[in-house]
Parts: sequence; structure tokens; C-alpha cells
Amino acid sequence: MAGVDGGMLFSADRLRVWTQEIFRKLGVGADDATLLADSLIEANLRGVDTHGITRVLCVYAERIRSGVMNPKSRFTVVREKPSTALIDCHNGIGQIGAEKAMRMAIEKARKTGAAFTAVTHSNHYGMAAYWAMMALPHGMIGFSSTNAPAAAAPTGGQAAMFGTNPFAIAVPAARELPVVLDLATTVVARGRIILHAKQDKPLEPGWAFDERGIPTTDPHAALKGFLAPIGGYKGYGIMLAVDLLCGVMTGSNYGTHFPGFLADNMVDPTDVGSIFAAIDIESFMDLREFTSAIDKALDEIKRSPRAEGVKRIYIPGEIEFEMKAERLAGGIPVPEAVVRDFIALGNELAVPFPKA
Amino acid sequence: MAGVDGGMLFSADRLRVWTQEIFRKLGVGADDATLLADSLIEANLRGVDTHGITRVLCVYAERIRSGVMNPKSRFTVVREKPSTALIDCHNGIGQIGAEKAMRMAIEKARKTGAAFTAVTHSNHYGMAAYWAMMALPHGMIGFSSTNAPAAAAPTGGQAAMFGTNPFAIAVPAARELPVVLDLATTVVARGRIILHAKQDKPLEPGWAFDERGIPTTDPHAALKGFLAPIGGYKGYGIMLAVDLLCGVMTGSNYGTHFPGFLADNMVDPTDVGSIFAAIDIESFMDLREFTSAIDKALDEIKRSPRAEGVKRIYIPGEIEFEMKAERLAGGIPVPEAVVRDFIALGNELAVPFPKA
Repeated sequence: MAGVDGGMLFSADRLRVWTQEIFRKLGVGADDATLLADSLIEANLRGVDTHGITRVLCVYAERIRSGVMNPKSRFTVVREKPSTALIDCHNGIGQIGAEKAMRMAIEKARKTGAAFTAVTHSNHYGMAAYWAMMALPHGMIGFSSTNAPAAAAPTGGQAAMFGTNPFAIAVPAARELPVVLDLATTVVARGRIILHAKQDKPLEPGWAFDERGIPTTDPHAALKGFLAPIGGYKGYGIMLAVDLLCGVMTGSNYGTHFPGFLADNMVDPTDVGSIFAAIDIESFMDLREFTSAIDKALDEIKRSPRAEGVKRIYIPGEIEFEMKAERLAGGIPVPEAVVRDFIALGNELAVPFPKA
Repeated sequence: MAGVDGGMLFSADRLRVWTQEIFRKLGVGADDATLLADSLIEANLRGVDTHGITRVLCVYAERIRSGVMNPKSRFTVVREKPSTALIDCHNGIGQIGAEKAMRMAIEKARKTGAAFTAVTHSNHYGMAAYWAMMALPHGMIGFSSTNAPAAAAPTGGQAAMFGTNPFAIAVPAARELPVVLDLATTVVARGRIILHAKQDKPLEPGWAFDERGIPTTDPHAALKGFLAPIGGYKGYGIMLAVDLLCGVMTGSNYGTHFPGFLADNMVDPTDVGSIFAAIDIESFMDLREFTSAIDKALDEIKRSPRAEGVKRIYIPGEIEFEMKAERLAGGIPVPEAVVRDFIALGNELAVPFPKA
């Protein structure tokens, strides 16, 4: 079946099963492979392909095979209190540590009302929203954030000192879809700059700086420079706070200390730190009263007057939920070059990639 | 003594004592008046005059005298768990409720590792940083956020649906100054637009929208329109999340439901909600190890290469700490029109405003 951008469309279920089997072959435990495949396919379903199998599966496979990321999960709870935990992931797969930490946050929040956990010595954990959303079926508000290798400079700086340091917040509703906010603290992702560079299209003002730290709309200059934080010095402050909590407070890497990420370095562990929080809504208000009130608040926003030419006002996460419905029905698009990589990986591991 | 902008300079101590006495005369209890005066003067000292006595003292006085804000503090703990509390402030002064809620968060975090509290039916609480910073002497990371009457539209919208909904994070250091991030979720404050309008100076792109929801650099059009959130749809998501947690989850006002704020409405209580959190660092890392690591991280940023023409890279809060040192030594500037208001208020309440 032909997909968008010359890509091909595959059913989510088939991709999920195949991904799971690939990770099993790479030495990942059965439950861990199920979780990992689900979290990656969920990113693809939501249209966040940068955090789905299309971008990271082959990289994860290479990291495991080259020994720079441990396929076997092993956790040490370094410190623990009734509402907190610090979990050492011993260079395991980021998603496995994230699930463990978020599950602990939810269990603790059920007892104490709210909880805050963190992982250290971990890896890329995929889409932040997946972990925040784990809180939703428990009647809780979820939060997660992670640091990442440097891509942005402090205000006035001329060197990358901070990752895109994303964070996600998920809030349950009743009839309405839950609010799922998931954002990097840079105005745009690096991928957006790369796309403009390929098309020789100027950037919008405020997206990026050149290598001297001067604002630029030239995509080629921006690729040698840095991404701009949201709100200028405000976003710099947010990405710094994320790095201090995720990196410094957990004893993981931070700032310029990352040896690289994903495909950039296949020798040294990335040593990422991430944080997780859950707030049990019943600690503040009856859950049903809360979700009805959220419905009302969201409805007011969606019905509020629209600017000229705007057809609809979206709630954070809404576009992704609609994309998921569409892709569950019509399939997940995989670019042809990626399909070729998947076929090769499948052949190497004797787990043939399914036909579209 | 002549100050900046034709204002006059007053010693912080004299202003603090006078402010305290004014609030005593208005029926505020002794301890509450001390706290309230200190938090307002601290805002002035840090250069955040918009949240100091210069902007809000006369408004608070009028609110108390017209009966729309209660000078007597009375709290009901509506719900409480080991790591959470919801406190009804019964339309008391915002700062008094904020201090109570942040103190509870710190006490709870000491026992459980982390805590999250909230106030409902409260009022304007001044500078968010003051509450986050309360955590610092306890070896904790502090957080606070509050909602506020609508000033910004959702992405694509043509009606103000969200306040500037600020939040603050404070992180302790050892030799270095603590990191104190305090930001509104709009690119600039409304005051900045007003200033440009007075000078007929165009705004920078990305600051504001006109009343039709179209981006504008005309300050006069912007005053009829809306402030732009940081990072476009990202900031819209952040201000929405703040409103859902501070407003909806606490059962306070949110979105367009505010009857006005400060001087806008002297009949109906504002009914603000605010949230507070504390993380005990020792739950994750020995405090001394943490503060040294923070020192190192901040030092790396401050020493990182600077863009052309940039003399110095600042850490969030650094400018405010330096301003405080300057104003403690040289005095707090009070514009002449405000001095006249203070003299009048002092005469009415038989608490003469001190000479400069």
C-alpha cells in the first residue's frame, strides 16, 4: 500500500509484533520487549515519528549490538522515601527504566497523594507523553521530563549547553480527550531546520542562531549553530531547570558532558537522567467532579472565538489522538529508505519484516 | 534622594516598616503584616517592581477597605494526605495563603521526600519566586505557580482565555547564587506593551496579537488584542496546564471566569488558585554533593563562549540578586506619582509615609 511522501503503510499491530520480536532476538526480556515495542509504536501512531520505530529502532538495535546499551533490565533503587525514589538503570533501555519509575510514582501517589521519582544512568526514553499518560487510567495527573545532549545555547551564549530537554503533562478528562502536552523547550526541533535546509527555504525569525550566536533565518547557518529556546531567556531557564533536575540531581550526565546520543556515539553510554511525577486527583477533588470540570474548561476553549481563517482551536494532544485513530485505521507510514533498513535488520536477525 | 526615572529612593527597611504598619491599620494580623510587607519589599529589592509595593500596595489597601479581600487570615485544610494538601483561604490575602501552603509543602517533603500543595479561593500572591525560594534554606528545590485573569488567547483563538500564569523554580547552590527562575508564560508582560505604546515604538515580532488574533507589531493594536505565549502553541499548552492545575483542580476560578483582578474589580472576590511543591534534595543525593555539582554546572554555563558583543552570561535569578544588593545599599526607587499616593494613604491611615 502506498503511503505519504513515497512511504508505505503498515498496520500498527504487525509493526508492533515485529518490533517486539526484533528486541527479543537482541536479548531484551519478553515483558520489556512488549513495553518497548508498544511505546515506540504509540509514538508512530500519534504522528511523533521522530520518537517511533521509524527513527530509533535501527539505532537502538545498533546500540544493543555494539554493547553500548544493555538489553537486560536491572534496577537498583538508590534512595527511596514514601513519595520519592531514585532508580539506577545501569545503562539499560530508557523506556524500561521510565516505565519502572513512572509506575513507582503512581503507586506512591496513591498512598501519599503525590510522588516524584527519577532515573539515573539511563538512555533515550522515547516520547515523554507516553510516561505522563501512564497516570491517566489511575485518575492521576502525570508528568515526565528528560535531559538530552546539548543543542541550544544559554541566552547570550555561543556554545550548545542544553538539550531540547522536553517535558510532558497529562491531565484526564471525562467525555473530552485527555490533555496531553508534550514539548521540547526549543522553538522547533532540529529536524525542522534540516528539512528547510534541504529545500533551501528560509527559517522563520526566532527559530535558530548561527555558530556565532547571532539570530539567523538561514537554515544552513542554523545547522552549524543552535536551536532557539522558547521565549528566549525564559526557555533557557526552563531547559536549565530540566537539566539540573534530570541530570545533576540524579547524578547523570548534563550540559556538555554527554558523549553523544542515539547514532552519534556507539562507544560510551549516554547516561541520561529523567524525572517522573504523579498527582492523585482525589487528593484535591473527587475525580468525577474534576473530569467534568476539565470537560467544561476544554469546551470553553474549543468554542472560543477564532482568529481569521482558523477552522478549529485544538487542545494539546488532540491532533495526536486524531492521528492515532487515522493510523490505526489506515496504517503507519514508513519511508521507503527505512523499509529497506527494516528488511535488512529483519534478515540479519531472522525476523522477516512484514509485507505492507 | 533622587532616583531613576524621576523617582525617589527609599531605604528598604523604612518601606518595609511603613508597609507593615499600613497593613496593621487595615486589619491584617501582626505576623501576616510582617510576611506580606517582606514579600512585597523583596519583589522591589529584586527589581520586580510590578509585584512590589509600588504597583500593588494601594490596590491591596483599596481591596481590603472595599471589603473585596479579607485582611484576616483563616484557613481550612479541605483535603490532606502525607504529601498533599488543599487549603481554602476564604478570600484572604494571597501571600498569607501562599506562605501557609509552601510551609506545608516543605514540612511534608521533609517526611515523604516530595510534596505538592495548593490553595483555593485566594488572591494575587505577588512574586512567584518568593514562594519557590522558601524551599532553599531547607535544602530543597521549590516550585510555585498561580493562575490569573485572562490576557492571552489559545493558538488560533481570538479571545483572551488564559492569564500570564507564571511559575517559579528555585534550586540551591553552594558558593554560587541559587538558581531562581520566575517567568510568565507570555513572551512579554502587558506593561512592556503599554510602555511601547506610550513611546509609539513598534513591538518586536512575536510579542502580541491584535484583537482579530493576527500577529502585530503595533503596540496600540496589541493593547486591544492579546499577549503571545512563549513558543506559540507550546506556551499555550503550558498556560493551559497551569490553569487546569491552579484553577480547575483547586475549585477556584480559571479561564474567562475571573471577575477582574487587582484594581479591575472591587466588588467580586478574584478567587485565584495557586500550587506549591518542594523536593527534598537528600531524597536523591547528599545535599553538599548536590550543591557542589550545581556550582560546577553553573560555572560551566557562565564560562561558556559568548556571542558577539555579549559581556556576560547570566544564570536565572542572578540579575535579581545583583539588583537586590544594589537596592539594599542605594534604596528602592519609587516613582513620584506613587510617592504621592503613598503619602495620601499614609495620611488617611495616620501612618505617615517616611521621607526619602
